[in-house]
Amino acid sequence: MSSALQISASISSNSSSFLNCGFGIRPSKSSLPPASRSHGICLCVAAPSEQTAYKTKVSRNANMAKLQAGYLFPEIARRRSAHMLKYPDAQVISLGIGDTTEPIPEVITSAMAMRAHSLSTVEGYSGYGAEQGDKNLRAAIASTFYGDLGIEETDIFVSDGAKCDISRLQLLFGSNVKMAVQDPSYPAYVDSSVIVGQTGLFQKDIEKYGNIEYMRCTPENGFFPDLSTVSKTDIIFFCSPNNPTGSASSRDQLMQLVQFAKDNGSIIVYDSAYAMYISDDSPQSIFEIPGAKEVAIETSSFSKYAGFTGVRLGWTVIPKELLFSDGFPVAKDFNRIVCTCFNGSSNIAQAGGLACLSSEGLKAMKDVIGFYKENTEIIVDTFTSLGFNVYGGKNAPYVWVHFPGRSSWDVFAEILEKTHLVTTPGSGFGPGGEGFIRVSAFGHRGNVLEACKRLKQLYK
Amino acid sequence: MSSALQISASISSNSSSFLNCGFGIRPSKSSLPPASRSHGICLCVAAPSEQTAYKTKVSRNANMAKLQAGYLFPEIARRRSAHMLKYPDAQVISLGIGDTTEPIPEVITSAMAMRAHSLSTVEGYSGYGAEQGDKNLRAAIASTFYGDLGIEETDIFVSDGAKCDISRLQLLFGSNVKMAVQDPSYPAYVDSSVIVGQTGLFQKDIEKYGNIEYMRCTPENGFFPDLSTVSKTDIIFFCSPNNPTGSASSRDQLMQLVQFAKDNGSIIVYDSAYAMYISDDSPQSIFEIPGAKEVAIETSSFSKYAGFTGVRLGWTVIPKELLFSDGFPVAKDFNRIVCTCFNGSSNIAQAGGLACLSSEGLKAMKDVIGFYKENTEIIVDTFTSLGFNVYGGKNAPYVWVHFPGRSSWDVFAEILEKTHLVTTPGSGFGPGGEGFIRVSAFGHRGNVLEACKRLKQLYK
Repeated sequence: MSSALQISASISSNSSSFLNCGFGIRPSKSSLPPASRSHGICLCVAAPSEQTAYKTKVSRNANMAKLQAGYLFPEIARRRSAHMLKYPDAQVISLGIGDTTEPIPEVITSAMAMRAHSLSTVEGYSGYGAEQGDKNLRAAIASTFYGDLGIEETDIFVSDGAKCDISRLQLLFGSNVKMAVQDPSYPAYVDSSVIVGQTGLFQKDIEKYGNIEYMRCTPENGFFPDLSTVSKTDIIFFCSPNNPTGSASSRDQLMQLVQFAKDNGSIIVYDSAYAMYISDDSPQSIFEIPGAKEVAIETSSFSKYAGFTGVRLGWTVIPKELLFSDGFPVAKDFNRIVCTCFNGSSNIAQAGGLACLSSEGLKAMKDVIGFYKENTEIIVDTFTSLGFNVYGGKNAPYVWVHFPGRSSWDVFAEILEKTHLVTTPGSGFGPGGEGFIRVSAFGHRGNVLEACKRLKQLYK
Repeated sequence: MSSALQISASISSNSSSFLNCGFGIRPSKSSLPPASRSHGICLCVAAPSEQTAYKTKVSRNANMAKLQAGYLFPEIARRRSAHMLKYPDAQVISLGIGDTTEPIPEVITSAMAMRAHSLSTVEGYSGYGAEQGDKNLRAAIASTFYGDLGIEETDIFVSDGAKCDISRLQLLFGSNVKMAVQDPSYPAYVDSSVIVGQTGLFQKDIEKYGNIEYMRCTPENGFFPDLSTVSKTDIIFFCSPNNPTGSASSRDQLMQLVQFAKDNGSIIVYDSAYAMYISDDSPQSIFEIPGAKEVAIETSSFSKYAGFTGVRLGWTVIPKELLFSDGFPVAKDFNRIVCTCFNGSSNIAQAGGLACLSSEGLKAMKDVIGFYKENTEIIVDTFTSLGFNVYGGKNAPYVWVHFPGRSSWDVFAEILEKTHLVTTPGSGFGPGGEGFIRVSAFGHRGNVLEACKRLKQLYK
C-alpha cells in the first residue's frame, strides 16, 4: 500500500462538513470559563468528556466497523476543501466526482415546475404515489429503453437513483450471498455489500474484503474479466459502460457474461447508468442478450443523461422471469422492499423523467450527452498528446489514464497541488485501479479547456 | 386469529398493481395461437412455464420469507380496488392510508417551481448536493423544531421521508440487535426489522415475530406501555403522537421512557412525524426531555405538515452525544450509511422544505394542519355520538375507534361493503390493535362529512 493510500485509510469516514462538528466533545461544558483561564490558574478539571461521556449499551454494527476510510467521493471533497483552505485564491476545477455541470434542458425543468405548481391546486394535487413509480413513467421507460426487448411496464421500478437501488438490492439479497465485482469498480457495490454483512474483514495486504470475488479488469484483458479464472458467486455486479474505466463491453463479451451466470446460476446486477453515452454498437442494455431476463437485473439513472444528479431519479428493471432457486420471483421480494423501505421517488422528479422521455426531451438529453462527449474527446486528446496510455472515453464520460508504477493517490495529490485540478485516484475504485486516475468529462467547456492547458504544462 | 385476518395473511405480498402482472407465465409464448384454439383441437402443449422455467441457484433471503402478507397499505389498496371492481358506480371515500388530500400552499410550490426553473440556468444549476442535505435546510430544521434544545445543524440528516430513514436506521443497527415497539405500531418498524434479520419467525398463534418486544398500548394504560413489564432491548421504536392510536405521550411519560432507556443502555428511535398536530402541552420532540440526546434519535417528516407525501422530504436527528457501547458516535455510522446508500433528497423538494420553514410557510402549514384537525373533530364527534369509545384525535390526525370483541378486518370489511368507506383495520398495526379501526382525518371536507353521514346510517 502506498503511503498516500495509508494516509487516506487512516482518515475518518466523515464527509467534510461532518468532520467539523466535534464529536464527543462539548467544549461549552467541559472547558474552563475565560476568567479562570486569564488568571493562569491550573484548576483540577473534570476528565475530557470522551472518557466520561455516557455510552449506550448498544454494540456498534460489526459490519459498519469493517468499512475502510471514507466513502470515496466525500473523501475527495474533503481533500478538495483542505486544498482550497491552503490556496484560497486558486481556481480549483473539478474533473473528479463525476458531477454534472450543464443546466437541465428547459423542456424538462418546465415540466417539473408545472408539476410543482399543480400541487397547489385541488385538481393537480396528489399525495402518495405508487411505491414502484408512476404508471406512465414506468411505461415510458419500458418503451424508450427496452422497446423490443420484452421488458414490460410492470418490470420497471422507478427510484431515487441507481446508488439507492443498489443498496435496496443488497437488502433484498441479504447477508448470506457472495458477490463478484469488476476490479476496479464503483465503490457503492462493495461498500453496500460490506454494510449488509456479505463480506469478511478488509485484508490490508491485498486491499480486498474477504468473501468478495474481485474480477480484475485491465488494459491487457480489454477491461473484461477472464471468466475462466472467476469463481462462482451468487451475485455479479457488472457496470458497462464502466465507471471508472470508461470501457463498454461488446455484445460477444456480454453473451459470455450471461452464459457464465447461467452456468453458475448467478444473478447479474447490471449497471447501465452510462448506456446513452455509447457511440459504437456495444449493447445499451443487458437485455439485448438472449436469455438475460432469466439471470439479470438492470439498474440505471437519469443523473448523467439529464443532469438529474441533484433531482434524483433512476430505475431498476427486474424481469418477472428472474427466479430464486426455490422458484420465487426476485421482483416480488424487491417489490416488498420498495413498499417497506421506500415510498416512491418525488412526484416532481417523476414529472421531469416523463418529460425526458418525450421526443423533445430525448433530443435535449442527447444534446447534453453530446456536449459531454466533446469534453471527453478534448481530455483524451490532451493525455494522448502527452504520451499517456488513455482508455475509455469513447462510450463513457470517463477517461482512464495510466501512470504505470505510480500510486494513484500520489498522482491525484500531484495534480491537485500543482494544477488545482481535482481528479479521482484509480485505487479508490479497488486495487485494480492502482496506477490510474479517472478524469471525468463533466464540466463547463471553459473549465475543461483550462484544465487541459494546465495538464499540458504539468506533464509537457 | 380471525378468519378475515387469515384470509389477509394468505394473500401474496404484492401491491395491487403488481398482482396483475402474471409472474412466471408468459402467455404470448406458451398459450396456443387463436387459430388452433378456434378449431377446438386439444394439442399437446409444453407444461406450464412455472414448472419448466429456468431458476437461478441464488437462495431467497430467508428474512424476506419471514414477512407476513403484504405491507399493510398496499394490501388495503388492493382491497379497495377489488371493491371498486365489484361496485363500479360506488363513490368510494378513503379515510384509510393516511394520505394527505389538500393542496400544498402556494408559497411552498412556488419555491419548488422556481428551483426547478433555476436548474435550467447556468447560475442556478447544481448537481449532487450534500448527502446529508442542504446546509441552509439543516440549519432551518434545527432552529425551527429544536431551537433551544441544543440540536445543531450538523445533527440533522435531511431525507426523502421518515419511512426511508427507518430502514436506513435498521441497516445501521444491523441484525444483532433486539428491538421493542409499541403494540399497535406503524408497520414499517417491524417489517424493516424482519428484513434486516433482527427477528425470529412469525408466530401465528400470538401474531408476533420472535425476538421483538411488543409493548402493549391500550386504553387501560393510556396508550403508554407499562415499562415495568417491558424487557430490556437494544432499540426502542416509539411514535408520539402515535400512529395509529392518535395518542400523544405526556412529558412525565417521556421522562419515564428516557430513564428506562438510560437504565437499560437502549437507543430510542422516536418518530415525531405528527408533532405539529399536538394541541396540548405534550412534548413535540423527545429532545425536550433532559438527557434524551444521549439515548435518542428522532425522525420526522414534512409529509403530514405540508402535504409532502408525494414530494418526499423528511429528516432524522442524531445528536453527537449518542454513542455506541464502544464510544463510537452513532451519527458517524449513519453518515456513512447516508453517503453509501443514499444520495440526498431531491434538490427541488429541499427548496420546498426551506419554504415550509419561512414565516409565511410555517403559517401556511399550520393552516393546513388546522383544517385536518377540524376534520378530526368531526370524525370524533360522529363516533362519540354513535356510542363508540373513541381515542386519539386530539393531538393527531388519527381517530382510534373501539369495536370490542370484533375482528378489525371484519369491521373494515363491513364498513367498506356497506358504506364504501376505506378505513384501516387496527390489527394491521399489530395484535394490540385487534378490535379497533383507525380512521384518518386526511380528506376533503365534503368527503369527511359524507363519510360521517354514511357511518351514522350504518351504526345508528
